[in-house]
Amino acid sequence: MRTESTEYRYLDRLRRKLFVTIFGTATKAGKIFDIILLVTIVLSILSVMAESVEEVALLFGWELFILEWIFTVLFTMEYMLRVFVSHRPKSYIFSVLGIIDLLALLPTYLSLFISGTQYLMVIRALRLLRVFRILKLSRYLGEAKILADALDSSRKKISVFLVAVVALVIILGTVMYMVEGGQNGFTSIPRSIYWAIVTITTVGYGDIAPQTVLGQSIAALLMLTGYAIIAVPTGIVTSELTAKGRYDQKPKTNNLVCPNCDHFHHDDDAKFCKSCGSQLEA
Amino acid sequence: MRTESTEYRYLDRLRRKLFVTIFGTATKAGKIFDIILLVTIVLSILSVMAESVEEVALLFGWELFILEWIFTVLFTMEYMLRVFVSHRPKSYIFSVLGIIDLLALLPTYLSLFISGTQYLMVIRALRLLRVFRILKLSRYLGEAKILADALDSSRKKISVFLVAVVALVIILGTVMYMVEGGQNGFTSIPRSIYWAIVTITTVGYGDIAPQTVLGQSIAALLMLTGYAIIAVPTGIVTSELTAKGRYDQKPKTNNLVCPNCDHFHHDDDAKFCKSCGSQLEA
Amino acid sequence: MRTESTEYRYLDRLRRKLFVTIFGTATKAGKIFDIILLVTIVLSILSVMAESVEEVALLFGWELFILEWIFTVLFTMEYMLRVFVSHRPKSYIFSVLGIIDLLALLPTYLSLFISGTQYLMVIRALRLLRVFRILKLSRYLGEAKILADALDSSRKKISVFLVAVVALVIILGTVMYMVEGGQNGFTSIPRSIYWAIVTITTVGYGDIAPQTVLGQSIAALLMLTGYAIIAVPTGIVTSELTAKGRYDQKPKTNNLVCPNCDHFHHDDDAKFCKSCGSQLEA
Amino acid sequence: MRTESTEYRYLDRLRRKLFVTIFGTATKAGKIFDIILLVTIVLSILSVMAESVEEVALLFGWELFILEWIFTVLFTMEYMLRVFVSHRPKSYIFSVLGIIDLLALLPTYLSLFISGTQYLMVIRALRLLRVFRILKLSRYLGEAKILADALDSSRKKISVFLVAVVALVIILGTVMYMVEGGQNGFTSIPRSIYWAIVTITTVGYGDIAPQTVLGQSIAALLMLTGYAIIAVPTGIVTSELTAKGRYDQKPKTNNLVCPNCDHFHHDDDAKFCKSCGSQLEA
Repeated sequence: MRTESTEYRYLDRLRRKLFVTIFGTATKAGKIFDIILLVTIVLSILSVMAESVEEVALLFGWELFILEWIFTVLFTMEYMLRVFVSHRPKSYIFSVLGIIDLLALLPTYLSLFISGTQYLMVIRALRLLRVFRILKLSRYLGEAKILADALDSSRKKISVFLVAVVALVIILGTVMYMVEGGQNGFTSIPRSIYWAIVTITTVGYGDIAPQTVLGQSIAALLMLTGYAIIAVPTGIVTSELTAKGRYDQKPKTNNLVCPNCDHFHHDDDAKFCKSCGSQLEA
Repeated sequence: MRTESTEYRYLDRLRRKLFVTIFGTATKAGKIFDIILLVTIVLSILSVMAESVEEVALLFGWELFILEWIFTVLFTMEYMLRVFVSHRPKSYIFSVLGIIDLLALLPTYLSLFISGTQYLMVIRALRLLRVFRILKLSRYLGEAKILADALDSSRKKISVFLVAVVALVIILGTVMYMVEGGQNGFTSIPRSIYWAIVTITTVGYGDIAPQTVLGQSIAALLMLTGYAIIAVPTGIVTSELTAKGRYDQKPKTNNLVCPNCDHFHHDDDAKFCKSCGSQLEA
Repeated sequence: MRTESTEYRYLDRLRRKLFVTIFGTATKAGKIFDIILLVTIVLSILSVMAESVEEVALLFGWELFILEWIFTVLFTMEYMLRVFVSHRPKSYIFSVLGIIDLLALLPTYLSLFISGTQYLMVIRALRLLRVFRILKLSRYLGEAKILADALDSSRKKISVFLVAVVALVIILGTVMYMVEGGQNGFTSIPRSIYWAIVTITTVGYGDIAPQTVLGQSIAALLMLTGYAIIAVPTGIVTSELTAKGRYDQKPKTNNLVCPNCDHFHHDDDAKFCKSCGSQLEA
Repeated sequence: MRTESTEYRYLDRLRRKLFVTIFGTATKAGKIFDIILLVTIVLSILSVMAESVEEVALLFGWELFILEWIFTVLFTMEYMLRVFVSHRPKSYIFSVLGIIDLLALLPTYLSLFISGTQYLMVIRALRLLRVFRILKLSRYLGEAKILADALDSSRKKISVFLVAVVALVIILGTVMYMVEGGQNGFTSIPRSIYWAIVTITTVGYGDIAPQTVLGQSIAALLMLTGYAIIAVPTGIVTSELTAKGRYDQKPKTNNLVCPNCDHFHHDDDAKFCKSCGSQLEA
């Protein structure tokens, strides 16, 4: 019985140590783990990209295929390890980062059944957001929080604005379809609406462009409108950010992030995550 | 005589109930009515769009034609019902939403006499603005009011700016016509002005582009100018919004909107619309 | 002798009345004169534009030629009248509007000697700025002054910014010339710099576009840079405008504009222009 | 022995005089030196540009080649002179301007061994930043400092933003590669990511453009996103600049710049550079 207990204690200690290494960034081992992880993610994304280039695929197709599976197996092991060492596996599995970690694994397995899906693996790009973990994460999350808060307070103003833009684009797109017609590239209303969006956002591919004098006049009007209203969302976000900067100078929350479930908004004196109980690190 | 009175009372009660359902959003029936209405509007817009796509028109032309008439008949009935149940029909008919409701009906009837006009039906897109009705409308209208106020105070500054841009575009367009000439696509002054607008707003289709060294130098100057002056309307709107945010924190009006005639700017303690007397709902 | 004196007095009174009509906007006659003038300017610009459209020139070339000379003779008479009725002709002749008025006449006369110069007549577009005269001019000039002041205080920050952009564009343009070379459209360094300006300002014609992987990577970098630095001039102008709005609420000058020489910045209690002595009108 | 001492004293006086002329801008000689230098830099950049235009190279290739060497020899002499007259040569050599001065020389010498490298000489464009030296440099550097400070405080917010944009661009680029495929120009994932960057920054060359309905819908979404998020960096920089303008009104540093090593941030009462001991000039 004692051996088992010792064994269990040994396992528990290992688990704790692994937890600090895998989820934390305070220890040296934790930092090294995170840097290796990031480099591996970047390499795996680069290999998917390389595979899509025909000339590279012809020369190194087989090598890249093997590499892809090595990366996937490594990430699968990492995922299982994360679930194993976590205090409350469920909090991790259903946290945002946990779901991304899982989604980043599936495409490769899926490609066994449906060919082509392996490209979806680039969802691993989202895992790059972990980079903030290493670079004094808590401060960056504070900044992200201010940004997110400002965007959140702007939401209502911006949705009013977006519905107005969508109505404008539908009506002007239809008018252009009637004015220019199919022979000038405006072959259907959806395509004309696509053109109106390309124009009002000032992207302007030029694959569809008005040819008649009336059409060009309407287009000119749409462009000047787009030019004027580009000011509106900018004005909204800026005034919110300025207001935030003025009042939220001293946030009452401590900006620490739970290494297990990524919960933040903890109180100033919090030492443990109020959502899953993991220890917080400064 | 008594029967008639009972009949009238019954009719009046029906009318009131219908009014609350059709114009209001506070009751459950009112909300359901509005959601069904919005879905119908979206479907009707989608069917017009679909009709304009040649492949779809060949396959389902007849079905779409019938659908279009069903939608139009439904909206006509809705419009007549609105007029009927309204306390003061004139306030509704000449309110902004009332005019849009009418305009959204006409194109289909017009298409009986002039072919092609049915596409104008997409003016129904404007009816989508009713969406704010359902989503806690009053708050959104408050936001829209702040936006509109800021744009209104910026009007004078922006019109000074726009006249300057128009003068610049006319002069530079003409200079480019003289420099590049017809063989490089600048076939007339109006077309060159169109090019100048496409360039200064940074849309840049590329259907007309300068070829000579002098023309490209002038174009480069115009672009840098456009880049610099894009800052001006943004600056104007932002500073107005920031100022609004500072002083208008506590608006004295209650942001309620009359369900009958869409009048707002009501006093804080207003219970009835000061324009048409309909009851306001929180 | 007496007759001469009476004649002189009559002439002087006529002159004063004409002055109020031509330069002023307070009297009814003055307003009508200004509106007729603006309409004539617009018509004359439209006729130059029309002349440049080949199909129109073939049909109405002769009529437009005559129209052009009628407009020019009218504007010449107006200019001479302005000089004649002005209190201090020199102040008018050398004011900004006076110089524009003269420049707007010359192209037509010049076209007698050098063909093609008549298009320069569109400089008359600048005369459209007179529109603010009619629409409660003084208020608009107050807004224009705030805008001009904000741009003036931003001048130093923006020139630092522009020199940096020019240096960036020269260096990246040259690098692209070396990377892409003539076969991909980057035929010379000036042309590559033109491309870099087209790209950094987000105009993006697409007449020159990188083809090699390295070139596209550099272009992507340049675009993201352009995207980030578009924020800088906007930020500068906005913060100046916000600051202006905060401190300059009560301008000490009265925003009146001298109808003769367009001087403004007059003191609050000024009744006569401090530059040329003409009476100011509210 | 005495002669030597006199000689040394003479040399030392010459050195001091040269220092004031070459590094300073307070004396008349110093200003003239700087203006000649700037003109020479502009001429040398123009000659490199001219050489890259094929028609010019055919006619004046030899003359431009000689000119290039003359400029390089002049700049080499200037560089050696700067090192010689500097109080602390090392501070100059390793200052930012010193490194740029050296880099601007190397390409011509390098072109003796590797052909084509002479174009890199346009790095001389960076030397144009010296222009602020002449135009009351200290004030401009003060403005540059405010700009740099604002950008520095925005760094964290902007890097959060950029990582999010990069992740978005990678994922959407890949999706477009799967949706559109090689036959519509999306021949590989890197190329699709290039397209996504061209689109989200609103450059929009149009060399690659979606053709399928699904692809165009995703593109429209990406454009509207780009339109919305263009507001974010602008908002960040603006709110920082506004905050700076509010608090940093009275900078404690005197904005003087060391003419030898370009150190600034000196105290208000500083007379000598705290980094290299050269005298500061107002």
